[in-house]
Amino acid sequence: MAGNTFGQVFRVTTWGESHGPGVGAVVDGCPPRLPLNPALIEAELARRRPGVQAHASPRREEDRVEILSGVFEGLTTGTPISLLIRNRDVKSEDYEALREVFRPGHGDFTYQAKYGLRDHRGGGRAAARETAARVAAGAVAKQLLDQENIQVLAYTLELGGVRAQTRDEARLWDNPFYCPDPGAVPDMISRVEEVKARGDSLGGLVEARVRGCPPGLGEPVFDKLDAALAAAVMSIGAVKGVEIGAGFAAARMLGSEHNDPLIPGGFASNNAGGILAGISNGDEIVLRAAVKPIPSIAREQQTVDLAGRPRTIAVRGRHDISAIPRIVPVILAMVRLTIADFLLRQRANQ
Amino acid sequence: MAGNTFGQVFRVTTWGESHGPGVGAVVDGCPPRLPLNPALIEAELARRRPGVQAHASPRREEDRVEILSGVFEGLTTGTPISLLIRNRDVKSEDYEALREVFRPGHGDFTYQAKYGLRDHRGGGRAAARETAARVAAGAVAKQLLDQENIQVLAYTLELGGVRAQTRDEARLWDNPFYCPDPGAVPDMISRVEEVKARGDSLGGLVEARVRGCPPGLGEPVFDKLDAALAAAVMSIGAVKGVEIGAGFAAARMLGSEHNDPLIPGGFASNNAGGILAGISNGDEIVLRAAVKPIPSIAREQQTVDLAGRPRTIAVRGRHDISAIPRIVPVILAMVRLTIADFLLRQRANQ
Amino acid sequence: MAGNTFGQVFRVTTWGESHGPGVGAVVDGCPPRLPLNPALIEAELARRRPGVQAHASPRREEDRVEILSGVFEGLTTGTPISLLIRNRDVKSEDYEALREVFRPGHGDFTYQAKYGLRDHRGGGRAAARETAARVAAGAVAKQLLDQENIQVLAYTLELGGVRAQTRDEARLWDNPFYCPDPGAVPDMISRVEEVKARGDSLGGLVEARVRGCPPGLGEPVFDKLDAALAAAVMSIGAVKGVEIGAGFAAARMLGSEHNDPLIPGGFASNNAGGILAGISNGDEIVLRAAVKPIPSIAREQQTVDLAGRPRTIAVRGRHDISAIPRIVPVILAMVRLTIADFLLRQRANQ
Amino acid sequence: MAGNTFGQVFRVTTWGESHGPGVGAVVDGCPPRLPLNPALIEAELARRRPGVQAHASPRREEDRVEILSGVFEGLTTGTPISLLIRNRDVKSEDYEALREVFRPGHGDFTYQAKYGLRDHRGGGRAAARETAARVAAGAVAKQLLDQENIQVLAYTLELGGVRAQTRDEARLWDNPFYCPDPGAVPDMISRVEEVKARGDSLGGLVEARVRGCPPGLGEPVFDKLDAALAAAVMSIGAVKGVEIGAGFAAARMLGSEHNDPLIPGGFASNNAGGILAGISNGDEIVLRAAVKPIPSIAREQQTVDLAGRPRTIAVRGRHDISAIPRIVPVILAMVRLTIADFLLRQRANQ
Repeated sequence: MAGNTFGQVFRVTTWGESHGPGVGAVVDGCPPRLPLNPALIEAELARRRPGVQAHASPRREEDRVEILSGVFEGLTTGTPISLLIRNRDVKSEDYEALREVFRPGHGDFTYQAKYGLRDHRGGGRAAARETAARVAAGAVAKQLLDQENIQVLAYTLELGGVRAQTRDEARLWDNPFYCPDPGAVPDMISRVEEVKARGDSLGGLVEARVRGCPPGLGEPVFDKLDAALAAAVMSIGAVKGVEIGAGFAAARMLGSEHNDPLIPGGFASNNAGGILAGISNGDEIVLRAAVKPIPSIAREQQTVDLAGRPRTIAVRGRHDISAIPRIVPVILAMVRLTIADFLLRQRANQ
Repeated sequence: MAGNTFGQVFRVTTWGESHGPGVGAVVDGCPPRLPLNPALIEAELARRRPGVQAHASPRREEDRVEILSGVFEGLTTGTPISLLIRNRDVKSEDYEALREVFRPGHGDFTYQAKYGLRDHRGGGRAAARETAARVAAGAVAKQLLDQENIQVLAYTLELGGVRAQTRDEARLWDNPFYCPDPGAVPDMISRVEEVKARGDSLGGLVEARVRGCPPGLGEPVFDKLDAALAAAVMSIGAVKGVEIGAGFAAARMLGSEHNDPLIPGGFASNNAGGILAGISNGDEIVLRAAVKPIPSIAREQQTVDLAGRPRTIAVRGRHDISAIPRIVPVILAMVRLTIADFLLRQRANQ
Repeated sequence: MAGNTFGQVFRVTTWGESHGPGVGAVVDGCPPRLPLNPALIEAELARRRPGVQAHASPRREEDRVEILSGVFEGLTTGTPISLLIRNRDVKSEDYEALREVFRPGHGDFTYQAKYGLRDHRGGGRAAARETAARVAAGAVAKQLLDQENIQVLAYTLELGGVRAQTRDEARLWDNPFYCPDPGAVPDMISRVEEVKARGDSLGGLVEARVRGCPPGLGEPVFDKLDAALAAAVMSIGAVKGVEIGAGFAAARMLGSEHNDPLIPGGFASNNAGGILAGISNGDEIVLRAAVKPIPSIAREQQTVDLAGRPRTIAVRGRHDISAIPRIVPVILAMVRLTIADFLLRQRANQ
Repeated sequence: MAGNTFGQVFRVTTWGESHGPGVGAVVDGCPPRLPLNPALIEAELARRRPGVQAHASPRREEDRVEILSGVFEGLTTGTPISLLIRNRDVKSEDYEALREVFRPGHGDFTYQAKYGLRDHRGGGRAAARETAARVAAGAVAKQLLDQENIQVLAYTLELGGVRAQTRDEARLWDNPFYCPDPGAVPDMISRVEEVKARGDSLGGLVEARVRGCPPGLGEPVFDKLDAALAAAVMSIGAVKGVEIGAGFAAARMLGSEHNDPLIPGGFASNNAGGILAGISNGDEIVLRAAVKPIPSIAREQQTVDLAGRPRTIAVRGRHDISAIPRIVPVILAMVRLTIADFLLRQRANQ
């Protein structure tokens, strides 16, 4: 069965290709009586479209959202919320050369293998454009989390090897890299410029945090909260690794170092990243995602065509140098969707 | 809704606590006409019970499995396969002291927070004992994968900082650490002895590989194969991070380094770890999991009791020094279950 | 969890209210490479909109469908198919009087009880308008069934007590009641005129048949094919009963009468209605649905308002006298969706 | 995907064949802190085993249930509840003659068609024995419903054409037919004796009622409460039709007759059967099921064998004359499971 639905109770189904009429999401299971209007959603979408920045793709997406159902007189009704974001500024002719050639690092080869045909224009369903629907749905989840005073953050921890040294969350959205360390931004800019000049691309790390999450969320043994968060974040195209709390560093720690002592009212440390035995423990949830470099690069690469013959390719068109920072609001959305879903799942358990 | 079911088509529901009558699994959706008998399952279970080794828990589990349904005259019938593994050698009195105290690093606190009560004996449902049911179900999945010539491997890559330098897969199961580098075993033993003497515990890394996986498995956009594998492996208690292919290292690579060039018949490298855009590409699937040190340690730790009052605790009883190597067959089982499920899901798509 | 998704593999999520911007469906899990264009869908929708007939609601719905995704160069791609049908000709002011009064026989009271608010305009999500999305999705299923030579029929068996005596399937869509007995149509017209004059409404029976269904579809023990068909059809607003094969008549038959003898190549009779032990047996599947009279009647009725105070109501507006014949293509769609889903589910089992 | 799981939140997976080691159920999603012990379950199972009656199958099932997990110190823990009922008194040799012959009216032919093999002993998974697991799970649901003061009833409305004329619910379980009209029992006995002498079998009608169900349960548009109840009851082997409230009679009623006027505090009538637009309205839920005659009859019948050759068969062995009354506690269980699930689903919506 196909996999375009996320969540069990707060359930989102997305659809849409990068060069079709649009992308969208149907949110089913959103509780009734929450305030919702297009502006709340478009504010989140705007962060996914950093067109004002020098370092982002020049493609300008006018991300207007139309709420087609599920909202009446400004409030959710408990019925499915259908969100439509029209695609604009799509130039399909740019992609005609890709009809018969597979781009390395992209889903071209695997979509062809799986479905026996593919929409080759800009990656179709595998394009980053798909994540606009996630961000729109995540904005709905935000309304629910706000009501429960649960706050979710996401930011760039590292870009092309340049790492944030401080975390000034108040200035997160002020800089073009969504980086909590304004001091690291100049180095990030230099790194991007350098790599851009070589026709290459960069990866990095994104960190997400959940504050105010009540203890008790997570469904052992398979739908543990950390397992669900890992799947949520790993389902984003460019992510190749996910870790919770101490994460991979835990592999070299001793038990006496890693265990978080319990103290009255909480925990003395947070190596667990806010999740114990797959259930939130009330502490801050901390998650990091490894983001691979964008596969569309200007440098010539070796590949094959539909008939399996060797070809070379240099990807042209409007491409970012890194999935960062545009992936930051996507990771934010996926974490919000996960927490919203488990919040409602826990209500069902009681 | 509770989370004790794994998979969509090849679907496994597990149950059982460490100190109750037993643990088990119901496998629904296994295709008919596969050979299955208890010995095939018990062979896998034996690897989870390294009682012959000096370094493992002295608790001896006589893991006999009873097939209660779904098999007729030695073949699966397409109806649910119910597997029962009785618990033996359980000494609940050992745990009476834990009724009112939360062990650091365990699920004691979160189970209490979630359910309002808990079976405190040995961790109950959160105990490692639960994974015996996963291994039993994974042995059923193995029968299906064998039929398709899909081979899954898992082994210890690193234990307590001691890393395997070679990968001699033929000798994997010969040594007590399920390590593919026999030369690393003496160092692993030394490391374990050293830490054991200090009343502490160790973590490590486990790697899994899938060979012969056909291209086309994985269900974009949310049930991508890598997302599903991440959830599958992260759902195991001790796992705090998962990466695919180049994984976290990808964050510092350039696009030109990370992209795997396509060549006639396959790929020139495998940074993708066998998965592109969430769909298997026919190359070897490679996954690594970070395993935290076992939280049950003999050293005294700070904690609180049910009433929130400060307490100290030194966990007694029969405990391993590391989840490795016993977690290796569990990770193997979870990967098998995931691949089996997506294999059948892909059949439904066509 | 909310219930706007139908099916497991061929999976449809619908959304939309009668007086919002539109209704729609997302079809996920449709196999790739099927031909699909708006005209194929609009042909089915046209049967749901018998505006050319004297006896149907004068509201004219211009049911144009926009395929927003999942189709590339005329073929399905295996990705979600998003269908949008804009609402037109909606006069919300007609309904202002209903904001505070519950219409008897409608979902007004229960939607208010469930969600704590409701879109009172024309029934919102509970309106018949919702079924346009089902019909559109059913038209997609038809493409799959056509490929497998599975034919689904539905027709009016009885309207207001006037029963079809013959079954001339070739003339089904020729008459305004979708009745296979053209001879019964004049009596149906008389019955409708008579009841309309009294400001009242009528119910009836619809029968559906599936031909060419291979044996083996249906998933014991809970997702038996008859159980799924019963749910599919009962999920349509006006349906109050469903029976398969001999149905309720079976309650008074002897085993020797009811059992269908097996003969080489099939069965000597079909009291089972094509389903044995929840699995299709290769014979024709036969199902009947009881359709209640439309609750919107011009005659004055007793009711209460939001505050629980007694009120009277006479429903005005553009209403049909019976859900028949417009429900016929809806039942057709639901049976198609069910068979398509189980066809793909069976592929996954093998 | 296979269909042995029922429910979304209160979720039951059953397994087991009539002549294997046993049958059982795993209940996942039962809220914690409910009292549960084997005696509560066995009391329900006893009603499914009317061995004390002259008119029931002489096979004696010693239905002892073992709770293998999910209960600690007498209370549910929120973890999966595994229930095991061993089969006893099974004589597989009785069935050897059926290995190659299909019994008319049974699942023999369709199981063979679906799975390519079958456990021919007593029907395997298609046997009535399977329903013991449903009744056991339903007994768990009863604990939840009791806590909410929701009462579910089921009884024989008609057997072999003999209909109950009164409904003395207090005496339901006193008579061998679970009939609320003690006066009808002698006629039922006569009817049974008469048909038994002819080597034939009988069908009938069962009615179920739910009292105290809060308004608001049911998930439009596909998981309406009536749709779910229809599937739940139709998933029982012998059921061929289901109706809610006025049911099939509604097809011949006028809107003015069928609509239930709202009055302060409720409804003036209950043609809706307690469900409006798929959502409970707070009134009594009323449902009727048509039960076909048992297909196993002593009279000789025409059939075919595995090779498709004509054969005759006269089914021997220990068989009831009717699925009634043993089906009554099964229908009771399925209604309980449905209401329990929707009760928890509604909690998740809020």
